[in-house]
Amino acid sequence: MTGQVIDGKAFAADVRAQIAEHVVRLKEENGITPGLAVILVGEDPASEVYVAAKHKQTLEVGMASFEHKLPADVSEKDLFDLIDQLNADPSVHGILCQFPVPDHLEERRVVARIDPSKDVDGLSVVNAGLLASGEKGLVSCTPLGCLMLLRDQLGNMSGKEAVVIGRSNLFGKPMGQLLLQENCTVTIAHSRTADLPEVCRRADILVAAVGRAEMVKADWVKPGATVIDVGITRIPHPEKPGKSKLLGDVAYVEVAAVADAITPVPGGVGPMTIACLLANTLTACCRAHNLDEPSGLTA
Amino acid sequence: MTGQVIDGKAFAADVRAQIAEHVVRLKEENGITPGLAVILVGEDPASEVYVAAKHKQTLEVGMASFEHKLPADVSEKDLFDLIDQLNADPSVHGILCQFPVPDHLEERRVVARIDPSKDVDGLSVVNAGLLASGEKGLVSCTPLGCLMLLRDQLGNMSGKEAVVIGRSNLFGKPMGQLLLQENCTVTIAHSRTADLPEVCRRADILVAAVGRAEMVKADWVKPGATVIDVGITRIPHPEKPGKSKLLGDVAYVEVAAVADAITPVPGGVGPMTIACLLANTLTACCRAHNLDEPSGLTA
Ligand SMILES: NC(=O)c1ccc[n+]([C@@H]2O[C@H](COP(=O)([O-])OP(=O)(O)OC[C@H]3O[C@@H](n4cnc5c(N)ncnc54)[C@H](OP(=O)(O)O)[C@@H]3O)[C@@H](O)[C@H]2O)c1
Ligand SMILES: NC(=O)c1ccc[n+]([C@@H]2O[C@H](COP(=O)([O-])OP(=O)(O)OC[C@H]3O[C@@H](n4cnc5c(N)ncnc54)[C@H](OP(=O)(O)O)[C@@H]3O)[C@@H](O)[C@H]2O)c1
Repeated sequence: MTGQVIDGKAFAADVRAQIAEHVVRLKEENGITPGLAVILVGEDPASEVYVAAKHKQTLEVGMASFEHKLPADVSEKDLFDLIDQLNADPSVHGILCQFPVPDHLEERRVVARIDPSKDVDGLSVVNAGLLASGEKGLVSCTPLGCLMLLRDQLGNMSGKEAVVIGRSNLFGKPMGQLLLQENCTVTIAHSRTADLPEVCRRADILVAAVGRAEMVKADWVKPGATVIDVGITRIPHPEKPGKSKLLGDVAYVEVAAVADAITPVPGGVGPMTIACLLANTLTACCRAHNLDEPSGLTA
Repeated sequence: MTGQVIDGKAFAADVRAQIAEHVVRLKEENGITPGLAVILVGEDPASEVYVAAKHKQTLEVGMASFEHKLPADVSEKDLFDLIDQLNADPSVHGILCQFPVPDHLEERRVVARIDPSKDVDGLSVVNAGLLASGEKGLVSCTPLGCLMLLRDQLGNMSGKEAVVIGRSNLFGKPMGQLLLQENCTVTIAHSRTADLPEVCRRADILVAAVGRAEMVKADWVKPGATVIDVGITRIPHPEKPGKSKLLGDVAYVEVAAVADAITPVPGGVGPMTIACLLANTLTACCRAHNLDEPSGLTA
């Protein structure tokens, strides 16, 4: 048996196409263009790559993209002044600050400054509280992306055993909340879990978000499970000197032989993150204008 | 083998005694008296009993108790005006509105009106978000009480398998967050869980918060587990006509023979709730005055 490969790249392209259709409709029917503002502090090369990709995809779906580059030594006050201005700007529906920021700035305080209704990264305390309380908010993009893949793959998840490895605020904890909302029986495992292989073997849905290359082995996986691999580890390419290669948290080849379906790395969860950032921006825009929010693009 | 009975009544009395000592110290050293304001809307008899018990215990630990009784047909505006006044009152450190409120009022909106730093019931979206984000807030009283009992009973819980049955905002979800913070591997089960007995049998720590009398049987419990019974069901007393009797979610006699330790109903979790309300009021008071908060009384 070989598991089905969940093609996150194709699925993300489909999500972006749906978003682009909504954007056309919003422009034509309501004269509204959804807008995403991205703040980049300093010149981290990896961050510049991410921000450029976000910019490109934002424009491709027809949204307005506002880039704000601030020097690495920007004061908190100047950063907050910019955030306040974006909070007040009706053409901006989503705001994100690319992390990491330089050490003199505190991520927690930066996120807290963004209006929760424009916090399209879903990282603020208020959005975490809305999710935990089962109320409408904005959900962290990568877990939202995993949810979309799982809904597409499985449909109704009610009563399934879901195990999430990892408990970060960015991924593991919101993923657990989303699976609970889908009526799964949810287990959160982490570095202190006593017998991780045994815990994983219970899972009908196994989501790994650790950052340890190929940690999850075939004998950790229940035959027929759906496996979502969120982890990303970059290693030197074994065959191409000077090049690198991405590995997930799951030993892909052996687990694919046991699982019913599995996301590859790269090309699985990764492409969903920016697609969900755009989905959140669209949702925030519709809410700001008291319009029905698009279905299938929220939690 | 017979499990140890966890005496919540005695433990709650001890917690209140600790709180009373802190209150004496706050008065003597800082000239501060912690104050708790309770709002009761209408004349629900059960609510009146609860509010009277809170009032009595608040005074017993030396705090100020402010009771506000509003007519059943009070407008949202008048209720909010009272909350705003209590939010602004420096002698009030904790505010709670006794639920249920009459149908024309919305609990969610009432809780949201209370300043999160005075929300000693820990029910607001902001406090749920702080808990979910691992930041300091105020934690819902009953799960906080269960945490205190478990810490006292088990000390370090790292790596233990914890199962919580129930996923309410009031209890199940915050209990799960607290056990995760204690480094347990946490499973949340609920009405859609496919094989609840099997899920429960994994637990080193089993917490039941459903409201179905004696649902958890001996063969659902791993020998040596610690069992916390939160459920309360009132039934007609089998021997005393006209009287009633409380039952927990756990079939007490048979489970006590398997468990290492167990809370009875009544006299287990129940008494901890008001003790933790007072603990939260003390914590909120210390934070409001930038004083060190007492240890052992928070999450
Ligand atoms: N767009 C994307 O595709 C995307 C987005 C987000 C994240 N990621 C990737 O996902 C991974 C996790 O991200 P994150 O932000 O959640 O990371 P993180 O904050 O570092 O959290 C990692 C989690 O893994 C747990 N863990 C560490 N070692 C473990 C072990 N040996 N066994 C079991 N659990 C272990 C940690 O447990 P403790 O809490 O006990 O320390 C922690 O909860 C990373 O590889 C990241 O690059 C990808
Ligand atoms: N001071 C105290 O001692 C105190 C404080 C709070 C609560 N309690 C008691 O604790 C109990 C729960 O309170 P709550 O406010 O959390 O109640 P709730 O909001 O009614 O939640 C009950 C939970 O139990 C789950 N459930 C229902 N039937 C089930 C079944 N057959 N199998 C497994 N799970 C089932 C429900 O699942 P779904 O989500 O799928 O519906 C729900 O998550 C009540 O008896 C309450 O009186 C006591």
